[in-house]
Amino acid sequence: MTIPEFDPQQLALPHIRSLQAYVPGVQPVGGGWIKLNTNELPYPCSPRVAPAVAAEIGKLPLYPHPTSIALRQAIADYHNVKADQVIVGNGSDDVINLLVRAYSSPERGVAVTVPSYSLYQTLIAIQNGKLQEVELPPSLELPVDALVATGAPLLFLTSPNAPTGVAFSKDSVESLLKRFSGIVVLDEAYVDFAQWSGVELLASYPNLMVTRTFSKSYGLAGLRVGYALGDARLVELLDRLRDSYNVDRLAQAGALAALLDRSYHAEVIAKVKATRTVFLRSLALRGWHTYPSQTNFVFTRPETSDGQFGLNIAGSLFEHLYNSRILIRKFPNHPLTAPYLRISIGTDAQMDALNEIIDQWQQNA
Amino acid sequence: MTIPEFDPQQLALPHIRSLQAYVPGVQPVGGGWIKLNTNELPYPCSPRVAPAVAAEIGKLPLYPHPTSIALRQAIADYHNVKADQVIVGNGSDDVINLLVRAYSSPERGVAVTVPSYSLYQTLIAIQNGKLQEVELPPSLELPVDALVATGAPLLFLTSPNAPTGVAFSKDSVESLLKRFSGIVVLDEAYVDFAQWSGVELLASYPNLMVTRTFSKSYGLAGLRVGYALGDARLVELLDRLRDSYNVDRLAQAGALAALLDRSYHAEVIAKVKATRTVFLRSLALRGWHTYPSQTNFVFTRPETSDGQFGLNIAGSLFEHLYNSRILIRKFPNHPLTAPYLRISIGTDAQMDALNEIIDQWQQNA
Repeated sequence: MTIPEFDPQQLALPHIRSLQAYVPGVQPVGGGWIKLNTNELPYPCSPRVAPAVAAEIGKLPLYPHPTSIALRQAIADYHNVKADQVIVGNGSDDVINLLVRAYSSPERGVAVTVPSYSLYQTLIAIQNGKLQEVELPPSLELPVDALVATGAPLLFLTSPNAPTGVAFSKDSVESLLKRFSGIVVLDEAYVDFAQWSGVELLASYPNLMVTRTFSKSYGLAGLRVGYALGDARLVELLDRLRDSYNVDRLAQAGALAALLDRSYHAEVIAKVKATRTVFLRSLALRGWHTYPSQTNFVFTRPETSDGQFGLNIAGSLFEHLYNSRILIRKFPNHPLTAPYLRISIGTDAQMDALNEIIDQWQQNA
Repeated sequence: MTIPEFDPQQLALPHIRSLQAYVPGVQPVGGGWIKLNTNELPYPCSPRVAPAVAAEIGKLPLYPHPTSIALRQAIADYHNVKADQVIVGNGSDDVINLLVRAYSSPERGVAVTVPSYSLYQTLIAIQNGKLQEVELPPSLELPVDALVATGAPLLFLTSPNAPTGVAFSKDSVESLLKRFSGIVVLDEAYVDFAQWSGVELLASYPNLMVTRTFSKSYGLAGLRVGYALGDARLVELLDRLRDSYNVDRLAQAGALAALLDRSYHAEVIAKVKATRTVFLRSLALRGWHTYPSQTNFVFTRPETSDGQFGLNIAGSLFEHLYNSRILIRKFPNHPLTAPYLRISIGTDAQMDALNEIIDQWQQNA
């Protein structure tokens, strides 16, 4: 006997039945693409990663260390905090998810700015948490009053912001920390390309948590390692919710090797920043409005040769680049972001190739 | 200004504030231990894993494939199901967690047997879900009527059971599938050491999901890869909740290489089963009650030389072994499990060493 009418989706919780999945950037299968759509590093990871990973293969029959202790201690040393202030995740997304699960419910909201990293919304929806969106002004100055007014127990701030690439001022973030009654999470995925970090504020503000990732500046997006720094009591709480073996042996070993290779890290960051300077100059020569970038991507508003811009113009350039096998990212769902395109900083050669295709488009648009 | 009175734990949701973390088996730091406490494989993983992982290092700057497509397809081929019936997780714990999040709430319970894998309880507590425990009888026959009577939308069945090692009969599981109104999850972490698998029932029962892991028979506990098979609609639902990049590149590549090395897998399973037979015989010679094992561990009730057994006797042997640097597992919190000890099947040499230390203990106990 079978149960032909059984529908596993109808049986799910109501908010899960209607859930929209997060849509990650396209990961093309097959070669020949210039991939400037998910802010990956255009250089290899540290050469120390391969031997560190290889040395761990023989231990794969054994479970990994539950708290990633060696990596956790090295992260603590690097940031000059204590090991009990560090939690390591299967990507920083893992830690962000734990925060949502610990603090949000249908009655208790999570504050986010719009625009910001759109995964927050998905994680809040999975939790059936209340979403409290605060619009950023076109100036992209931090709307401290409006954020404080949410009264939310938890706030995510992509800092520097994505997808705009703009850094909030340290003064405005500190003003927020003083007045916000809940936990402020600075999602510093891109901070290695910026001028200041919230890590220096940790000692003064127990309501501050800073998240970081190995996916961007370390060139380890494929390894899935992130971490967060904060008050030891908050870390202890999140550790209780964390999967006991959330980060595998190879990921722990690879991230540790990359973290300890400080000179390589500094070198690739300098290269990305230099390319960013040159690319921003080329956009300025086109006369396109581009936000000042403190990240490894730029957010620019394409214009046709006769100075028009908007959703359709951005879509036209996106399509033209796609047809030339160059992937970038568009954000058509919000008036502030719709006329813009987000372009990751690749190698100099990749940016030159991109500029040539943009020239082509501008001549015909 | 700082906020000295701020307490991040007080701010958390009530059920999170009181949450007890899952306690994984001890992972000793430092050598010299015989580790028979977390059912790891005592042999290396397939020799194909190292080159597959090494080949992936150069791609680490790029995010992994979001749905682990190559691994997903290979798993589908291996089990003769379609790729849209497979979901890959960061360990099978990841998929179990997604199931809890999709189906359980304070009003809608999850049914589990007692004893079984204790992580279920932790995941249900994190979700603030209702826990519906059904006691196994000492015979360890499946209590079909009691499970059906829960009316729960979701049921986890460790099959074969842990920590007892006993396999439920296929008839009893099929009887449950016919009558249970929710989803039945067969957690087949140990099934490669057993005589039957629920995979053959998938085509007949859309309310069946089978979870598997690479942590046990494949010798890849350190890599964190598991998967589940089920109705395509259920997989689609869980994929919406899944972290977009839940399994890293090295884990995807390593698990795929291990999966495709069928002869190595068969060889190590045969070795474990042969050692299990010999070890079970040695326990029978001691006259200890031992459940028939369909797993890579045994559950045995130690007796003193004058035939006493119980919680304290089990604790005494556990301590004696610990002091001899042999790690096994005890389950003192339930009358059915308290007099027993769970011992993973190691190499023949490890089991010989264990038996010597048990002899020592019996002479003095």
